[in-house]
Amino acid sequence: MVSPMYTVYVGTFIQLPATSSPHEEHQLAITRGALWVSSADGKIKGFDWSIASESDLQTLLKRHGWVVDGRGSRTSVGVKLVRAREEENEFFFPGFIDTHIHAPQYPNTGLFGSSTLLSWLQTYTFPIEASFASPASMPSLPPPTAYRAYSQVISRTLSHGTTTASYFATIHVPATNLLASLAHKRGQRALIGRVCMDDPATCPPSLIDTSTATCLRDTEAVIQHIDSLSHPSSSEGAPKLIQPIITPRFAPSCRPTTLSALAALAAQHNPPLHIQTHISENVHECALVKQQFPDANSYADVYDRAGLLTPRTILAHAVHLSADETRLIAARRARVSHCPTSNSALGSGICPVRRLRRAGVVIGLGSDVSGGYSVSLLEGVRSACLVSRLVGFLRGQHHDKVEVVEAEADQDKKQTDGKRDENDDVVSVEEALYLATRGGAAVLDMAELIGGFDRGMAWDAQLIRLGAFQPAALWGPASPVSPVDVFGAESWTEKVHKWVWSGDDRNVRAVWVQGRLVHGVEVDDPRWSARWNWVWGLVGLGAAWVVVRRMR
Amino acid sequence: MVSPMYTVYVGTFIQLPATSSPHEEHQLAITRGALWVSSADGKIKGFDWSIASESDLQTLLKRHGWVVDGRGSRTSVGVKLVRAREEENEFFFPGFIDTHIHAPQYPNTGLFGSSTLLSWLQTYTFPIEASFASPASMPSLPPPTAYRAYSQVISRTLSHGTTTASYFATIHVPATNLLASLAHKRGQRALIGRVCMDDPATCPPSLIDTSTATCLRDTEAVIQHIDSLSHPSSSEGAPKLIQPIITPRFAPSCRPTTLSALAALAAQHNPPLHIQTHISENVHECALVKQQFPDANSYADVYDRAGLLTPRTILAHAVHLSADETRLIAARRARVSHCPTSNSALGSGICPVRRLRRAGVVIGLGSDVSGGYSVSLLEGVRSACLVSRLVGFLRGQHHDKVEVVEAEADQDKKQTDGKRDENDDVVSVEEALYLATRGGAAVLDMAELIGGFDRGMAWDAQLIRLGAFQPAALWGPASPVSPVDVFGAESWTEKVHKWVWSGDDRNVRAVWVQGRLVHGVEVDDPRWSARWNWVWGLVGLGAAWVVVRRMR
Repeated sequence: MVSPMYTVYVGTFIQLPATSSPHEEHQLAITRGALWVSSADGKIKGFDWSIASESDLQTLLKRHGWVVDGRGSRTSVGVKLVRAREEENEFFFPGFIDTHIHAPQYPNTGLFGSSTLLSWLQTYTFPIEASFASPASMPSLPPPTAYRAYSQVISRTLSHGTTTASYFATIHVPATNLLASLAHKRGQRALIGRVCMDDPATCPPSLIDTSTATCLRDTEAVIQHIDSLSHPSSSEGAPKLIQPIITPRFAPSCRPTTLSALAALAAQHNPPLHIQTHISENVHECALVKQQFPDANSYADVYDRAGLLTPRTILAHAVHLSADETRLIAARRARVSHCPTSNSALGSGICPVRRLRRAGVVIGLGSDVSGGYSVSLLEGVRSACLVSRLVGFLRGQHHDKVEVVEAEADQDKKQTDGKRDENDDVVSVEEALYLATRGGAAVLDMAELIGGFDRGMAWDAQLIRLGAFQPAALWGPASPVSPVDVFGAESWTEKVHKWVWSGDDRNVRAVWVQGRLVHGVEVDDPRWSARWNWVWGLVGLGAAWVVVRRMR
Repeated sequence: MVSPMYTVYVGTFIQLPATSSPHEEHQLAITRGALWVSSADGKIKGFDWSIASESDLQTLLKRHGWVVDGRGSRTSVGVKLVRAREEENEFFFPGFIDTHIHAPQYPNTGLFGSSTLLSWLQTYTFPIEASFASPASMPSLPPPTAYRAYSQVISRTLSHGTTTASYFATIHVPATNLLASLAHKRGQRALIGRVCMDDPATCPPSLIDTSTATCLRDTEAVIQHIDSLSHPSSSEGAPKLIQPIITPRFAPSCRPTTLSALAALAAQHNPPLHIQTHISENVHECALVKQQFPDANSYADVYDRAGLLTPRTILAHAVHLSADETRLIAARRARVSHCPTSNSALGSGICPVRRLRRAGVVIGLGSDVSGGYSVSLLEGVRSACLVSRLVGFLRGQHHDKVEVVEAEADQDKKQTDGKRDENDDVVSVEEALYLATRGGAAVLDMAELIGGFDRGMAWDAQLIRLGAFQPAALWGPASPVSPVDVFGAESWTEKVHKWVWSGDDRNVRAVWVQGRLVHGVEVDDPRWSARWNWVWGLVGLGAAWVVVRRMR
């Protein structure tokens, strides 16, 4: 059977418009109509927001010479139709972009006790990462734990609508290559980073690069493996889904020479490779960096001296940056991954997202599993909203009890010329959704490719179903499919808010990456698949007739 | 068919032991064995934690003369068996107790934009509550919106394992009576409060008691209706499930004379009626109280002068209490409902739970829907943990950047003689689960009846299923039933942590209130129900034989 040339998506599309200014208030762009994606490269080739009825749709199909049944002819082109059903409160939304997640830590999700960063690393994280080493007897085979953890984390992130993830793996080459292969097979867009860590003062003996040279060699081995992965099978002309990313764990676990060597390795590629690391997550970590790098002016300066602050660098956390560091990061156009679930869970603090954005820093969201307790970026969206309301509590609204941190506020006024009021720190639902889509795309330097539904972008999308209202039974044990109750009078904006605050993976009906269905049940247009029911009905009747005849 | 005399629950039971001291570290009590509940009154009559095998269980049954099939005889007693399956990571846990929830606001769950308390009341809350008035044409009938909202909120809270809830309704008698009847019918344990609000300066014309007299009259009408509700049908000798609660909305919406009259109304009952209201949620609200009650020493003092601070009083929020107010509340033995999801969502601030507990205040958790964005108390547990870690950030851990609020810390040292360190504010997973069960029971003055699995307590419980590990398929769209991934090596404590951080209503397999199944699918022992399969098999064979004979 010939593949259809296009898939036409029909229904309500919701996205966050691209913006050049962090001072603008983000709004949802809500449109209804049709959008078509080429099967050749998985990219959006066009859309028509004037389609308001079934006859409009038929006119559109006729105008393009499209026939909906997956087959074309000399005079027509076969297309496939996928609908978001209005009566089920379905809509298409850009896939989420997770700019910071540790794949090997996934089995530890929810396990952190009451620890903070440094004790958490020792107690929970290093042991599980060390277990990803290949067994000595068969050094070339990835261990089964890596297979289970990696295939599960890819499956779970996809099921939550994460179409792109920037993964930290471990120091181990076979397991890291496995992660890349699995993401490639499942069709998730991913940056895969072999973790580099070589300072014996801070790294456990079971989890350490023995030298800068072995660190570089192993990193290059992973890059080579990723380069060898084929283009997505369904779309030869499409951009590659899997890319390598240079991943020094964080300053305290790397020797300065290694940091510089890794920066050089990234720079020698064309375009330069992506880089990811952590910065200023926790006050004790900051103190450690000060002690370990006495010559540096700041934590950010450690990275800058090594050449690691580039426009393709993702810095996770950025909770405790000074004004100077913020300016430095903005000047280098390095990006920040905001990980609110993690920062709350490990008690690290609150990243002042609005302040950083006003200072010109590009920000996206990260789940930071398993410092973060959920792979869901919808949970990240919620969390980004919630903690930002507590920044306000810290800074102004609580003025009659908590002293405003005057020094900070002053620095801030100098940095920005916009007005400041007590809502200045509040991240709205719309802004948080922007961070999870367009913001994340910008953080990964992929703003042209993903994060929205612009023409030419890849179809990285999720079909969200809130469901029709299912009234509770008076007696029965009601178990609605959707965790969201839409009572019927809600606007689309209100429905999106309800999704954000009450929704979960049950609402993710389907997920596509670059046009390929990677999660959920793809729904053919029911009218078209029903077309052949009468044939099966006739076959059934005939069979019954034969049986009865024979019995007589 | 005669009901079995007992239900015997078999498997792993997890609960939080009662404690007399808030200085103790809370630990999970994890036991395995059998526990039996009387069908007559729904109470726990005994347990045996030495049951470790199937033969132990048979010995127990034989010793008591129990026969498992729902029927008794002259020499034996019929019992029913319900198992928590180890291989599915199932366990029994006490039902959650929601000490603060606004039932009419349920349809607004997730709708609050970026508002804070006072604007939220005007924009979202008062309009929906006003819609619960009966239509003028049929004043005795509850409006359909009330029916939909109330039956849904009961169904949803039950599905999240909330066995007891203290509800705010609205000012309307028919709708409030409906809420009581619905909770009674569905078998949820509930306090039902008709909201009192009569200050024309702050209440909208569409939602106001016209005088103290009408407020009292309407409140009494609801009390009378609740008194008329029968005992739970399954258990005549059991405590009543539904109780009235006196509910002045909060100081700013009530005239002082009304506050006093309501306190007197509560006091004239024996035992005195429960009372619920709000306190010190938001700084602007606090300022309003100061302005409206210039003679009072504090917000808490307003309630104290009216006689509203009693051992059966639930004060929601308590975010901005002064040390004097804390002492006053502790002295009056009034209780606090901590609503972290709401306080974060509306940017109200953080209730210093540990500090209040050290000062002797009894605390439970509240969802505060729809200020809170979720009916789930598991979400409340998560949120209580998370915000407490940010209190720490505020007070000490962030010392190199944020000035510690010295005045507060000093007050604190005077109040308590325990040691203080930076973890003093952190609410552990175990403590948050305690607040959601035993803590909530104490807040409702029901510590003897609910919140744990002690002998003589009501069987208010949930059966949690984490599920066996379901490996992700390499290609397929995997949609595991449970949001929790238990990989297999986890201890029970770790499983409980995973439940807290990743679980949701999908993990609530069954819920009982006072011995009655009120949500989920009750599971008979499969071996016993399989016993009759051969009969049905024979009947089926016989029917097939007759059909074939006839056709010939």
